[in-house]
Formats: sequence, structure tokens, C-alpha cells
Amino acid sequence: MVAGNKDGYTAGIDVGGTKTFVCIADSQGTPVLKKKFPTPKEAGPDVFFGWLFTELHGLLSKEGLRTEGLSGIGMGFPGVILNETGILTNAPAFSWPATDIRPIIGKHYDGPVYLDNDVNMAARGEHWKGAAQGKRHVLMVTVGTGIGSALILNGDLYEGADGASGEIGNWVVEASYPSHITRITGEEFGPFENVTSGTSIGLLARKYFCFGERISSIMDMVGGQVDRIEPWHVLKAASEGDQSALWIMESPLNHMAMGIANAVSLLNPQLVVLGGGVAGSSSFYVNEVRSRASKLTPLPLHIEQAGLGNEAGAFGAIAAVRTKTASVLDGRGSLS
Amino acid sequence: MVAGNKDGYTAGIDVGGTKTFVCIADSQGTPVLKKKFPTPKEAGPDVFFGWLFTELHGLLSKEGLRTEGLSGIGMGFPGVILNETGILTNAPAFSWPATDIRPIIGKHYDGPVYLDNDVNMAARGEHWKGAAQGKRHVLMVTVGTGIGSALILNGDLYEGADGASGEIGNWVVEASYPSHITRITGEEFGPFENVTSGTSIGLLARKYFCFGERISSIMDMVGGQVDRIEPWHVLKAASEGDQSALWIMESPLNHMAMGIANAVSLLNPQLVVLGGGVAGSSSFYVNEVRSRASKLTPLPLHIEQAGLGNEAGAFGAIAAVRTKTASVLDGRGSLS
Repeated sequence: MVAGNKDGYTAGIDVGGTKTFVCIADSQGTPVLKKKFPTPKEAGPDVFFGWLFTELHGLLSKEGLRTEGLSGIGMGFPGVILNETGILTNAPAFSWPATDIRPIIGKHYDGPVYLDNDVNMAARGEHWKGAAQGKRHVLMVTVGTGIGSALILNGDLYEGADGASGEIGNWVVEASYPSHITRITGEEFGPFENVTSGTSIGLLARKYFCFGERISSIMDMVGGQVDRIEPWHVLKAASEGDQSALWIMESPLNHMAMGIANAVSLLNPQLVVLGGGVAGSSSFYVNEVRSRASKLTPLPLHIEQAGLGNEAGAFGAIAAVRTKTASVLDGRGSLS
Repeated sequence: MVAGNKDGYTAGIDVGGTKTFVCIADSQGTPVLKKKFPTPKEAGPDVFFGWLFTELHGLLSKEGLRTEGLSGIGMGFPGVILNETGILTNAPAFSWPATDIRPIIGKHYDGPVYLDNDVNMAARGEHWKGAAQGKRHVLMVTVGTGIGSALILNGDLYEGADGASGEIGNWVVEASYPSHITRITGEEFGPFENVTSGTSIGLLARKYFCFGERISSIMDMVGGQVDRIEPWHVLKAASEGDQSALWIMESPLNHMAMGIANAVSLLNPQLVVLGGGVAGSSSFYVNEVRSRASKLTPLPLHIEQAGLGNEAGAFGAIAAVRTKTASVLDGRGSLS
């Protein structure tokens, strides 16, 4: 049971392609409850939000709290929620039909709901309590299943003209990139993502070992079963000097270094925060990107690993409620 | 003779690698005097500023105005003036020794002097009176001797943590770019600049015709003298469908389209303004970049040609004085 006054509690929810992380904070912003769930995304938004609010209700009620009593809910999604239509788009991990999610959420909760891209939420979290505390100009890049980024400029989240900034997964990585296979529909992974994401690292590794190479600590870790190779196996092996793993990581690291160096040359941020499931848990990855990127821009380059791990998104969702930033869905299910 | 009250006149000076453009505006911001000079940059900053203020004095005195009577001077330079040291750096067109230019300027004028990168000044100009009027989120890219860029975000010039944003000439254009030939010293043209600038377009064309190709309207324009080929010959010929010119422009256009598309995916601006000596004077160039870039980002892409031509920098320098933005050098020759 949570002690004391029940006023001013907020919920931060980070909806991921694989896991959904819920965090409840008290009126001081101190997290008092945390829980991670597998994301049941396959049946569409109606089923998903029904499930989500049932879980939220269960989590809160165990602690003597009620969903209706929350002063606000922040939610981050791996995509862009268009203010005009309420449709989750640019979300390759979700294959939901084009549905306005606002009335669906409104059926379950009538307080203010702050909605944003998951990486914007993670950047708010890192700025509030993580690696970017006190910094005014920050580029956050997340390397996980896909690639995301968010900008804090002049101390505030910068969302661009249409709230769609940070879509760096779409970066084209060579000028001769054939435009007909470029992601331009918002439904597939983008070019930069195709060469740097955790998904691509796993794929590169599985391809590499398909050709008969067997002597690698990666193969030891997966018992020789190529299909079991995950990005973290590759990073762990690379950090220990495994030659196959280093070979596999060469292109993903060089491309990430190029992308970050180019963003730094454009924006001159104080800090680049590297987070997400792949970058956030590997010092090897962060050190390699830092070392390579520093040779590719004449501007000052500071890269740090994210400080909040996979809790950054939920923390940032709480920060969005507390600072009343991000798109807000009022009790009538409309965005303002 | 300028009519009326002599109060509140300002000077905007755009110092270019080749030409220096001076514009005097009255208290309403209306330009009343304009003059362009070749830039005598070879003898270093002492000689340059001595020359500049002599010319400014001459220009003003013909009209019954005095340098001392100006309420402020704005100056744009093709490089970065570091606030800490007053040294012009990242200025490949100027090979000045590392000298603090602040006391040198202070010897000639003791009113406020607003200093900034020439492209930041051009962006202020386009925002004040040009293609970007009324826009809150703008990327300006200038294609001339070199490549420059500037950002207006949330309605204000965004200069980054160290005032060094917009250095896109340094963009690396392929992940395997050998770092030892990358511009990292600030003294050479950068990788992106090496493949997209007017300098590179001219060089590509001269190389192309060195190999014996002769049937092209470019060769007609220069009377068969390869050394006389300038970027504008190539653009004019390309705009008329000349196959050699189109072949030469393929890589510069594809790289510029990639760079702009990538910046749009990161920043989601409302508008991209293309200016500078090459892009600002060729509708063909702007149309080609727009068409190619639109295939390389899923975000809304709006590209317009700059509206003020080569007056944008001087107009922006006036705007900097009028809005009291940019680094300001006070009468004691110190930056605040």
C-alpha cells in the first residue's frame, strides 16, 4: 500500500513494440510502482487499450489507488500520433489499421492524457532524471528494435513543424540509394534503420554465420543455433574482442557514427545521449560510436550512455504530465 | 543625399569570400544605399577592416551620413567567430592567421557590432523580408563557393550550444569515408561541400571535358576553353537539357537532395530555403533538389528558392542590429 496522500499521482506508460512499461509516481514525482508487461498489439487498438487500462486499474487498486484519481497519464508510442487525426503512424512495429485512438483512450479515462512518440518521452525522462539533466541542447538517439531520436533545444523538447521531428530511421545513407525501396510510406523500416538497428545487427549476424563460419563466441553463446542470435550476443562478443562480432558491427557502428556526427555538424548540441535496448546496455557500443564519430565532425562532440535504461520513456511520460508538455488529450477524447 | 532624419541608420555588411556587400538602412529598415566590393582578404584582418571602414565611411559621407552616427553595424562572415576568442574559424575561404578580430573592429567603430556567420545572417534576412517571412521552422541552405546552412526554430535563429550549428559542409556522405581525409581541422572544405558546392560543380565539369568530350552547350558558352567553365554554365546548360551538364549535375543534386531530406527527417521544418550563388539563381537546381529530396523522406517537404538573392546576408545583418540578436561587440571591443 502506498503511504500518505493519494492526490497528484501520475502514470507514465511506455508502449513498446515488445514490452509495455508502466510507472506510477507520487505527487513529488517519485516512482512508487513499476511494472512491465508484454505488449498485446496484434488485435488492434480497441483490444490493446482495453487490456492496458485493465492492467493499470489492477496495478493501482492493489495499492489503494484508482485510475480515475490520477491527475494525468503520459503515454509514449513507437510512432507519431498525428494531432489532426489521432492516428498512430510511422510505427513499423505496429500494424494497426488507421484508427483514431483518441476516443478509444477516452472510453477508459477522462483526465488529461499526454501523448507523444516514445523517444520524445525518453528524452524528457533523461532530461528530467537521467544523463541529460541540466543540459539545454541534447540529441537523444535510441538504438533498439528500430532507431529513434528526439531533440531538446533551448531546454525544451523540439518537435518540429508537424510534431514529426527525429525520424532519423528514414535517413538515406548513400546518395545513390534507390528511392523505390526507400521507406516513404511510413510502414516499413527506413534506410538508416536498415543498417544500424538492433534488428539489422541480428540479421547481419545470422547471415554471417549462415555461410559456415563457426569459430566465434557468438556461436558458443547460442549453442551453434544461428536462429537464436540476438543483437546483445553480438555486442557482448564484440566487447570481448571476438573477430566475427567486430566484423559484423563494423557497418552498423560506422553508419551510426556518421549519422550522429552529421546531426552534430548541423545542430551543435551540448550532448548526444545514446539509449534504447541495444545502445543503452552496451558501453562497448557507446565507446565505439563516440570514437568513430569524433573523427567525422569538427564540432565539439559529447556522447553519453542513457542513464535510465528502459525506464526513460515511462519517466518522461510522467515528466510530460508534470510539465504539461506534449499533445494533450482531454476528457472528451480530443487533442489540444 | 538621403532625405530626412539621420537617426537610427544601420549598416548591414555581408563579407563574402569573393565580394563584400554593404547595405545601409534607415530607421524604418528600408535600404537606402547598397554597394558591392571585391573582398581584399589576402593581407589579413588588419588590412581588411581598415579597408572596410574606409569604404563604409566613403559610402556614408557621400550621403551626408557618418560611421559614428550609425546606431549599429551587423556583419556576416563565411565562418564561425568564436565568442571566447574572437577568432574567425571554420572559414575555408579565408586563410587569416588566428587573430582576435574584436579589437581590430573596435579601432574603427565604437557602437554595437552584431557578428555572425554569413548564412545565419542570410537566414535572418530571408526570415525578415524574403522567402521565409512568417515561418517558424526554417532550414536555410546556401550553395555557392562552399555550402552553408542556418536554422530558424520556433521563430528564432538556432545557433547550437557553441554558436556553431549549421556546419553541414562537414557532413560525411558515406559511412566508409576515410576519416584521414575528412575535414576536421576547420581549414579545408568538408566532405559534403566537396561533392555539392559550386566549387565542386565547376571542378567536376572541367574534369569531365578534360577527357575529350566536346559536344555540349557548356563548351559553346566558354568557347571551348575548359578553364573558363563556371558552375552557372553547367546549370544553364543542364536547365536546357544538355546531356553532359545533366550528367555532371547528377551527383551534386543527389547528394544535396539526400542531405536536405535527412535534415528534414531530423528536424521537420516548415520550409527549406535554398540560396547562395549557385542555388539562389537557378530554378532548375531548386526544382531538381525538390523533386529528388521528396522521394527520400516520409515527412512533409517544402523547398523554396531564396527571395533576396545575394542581398539576404546584408539584409539579415541589418535585421540582427534591429532585433539585437547575434553576438554583439560593444564599443570596447568585447563580445557579450
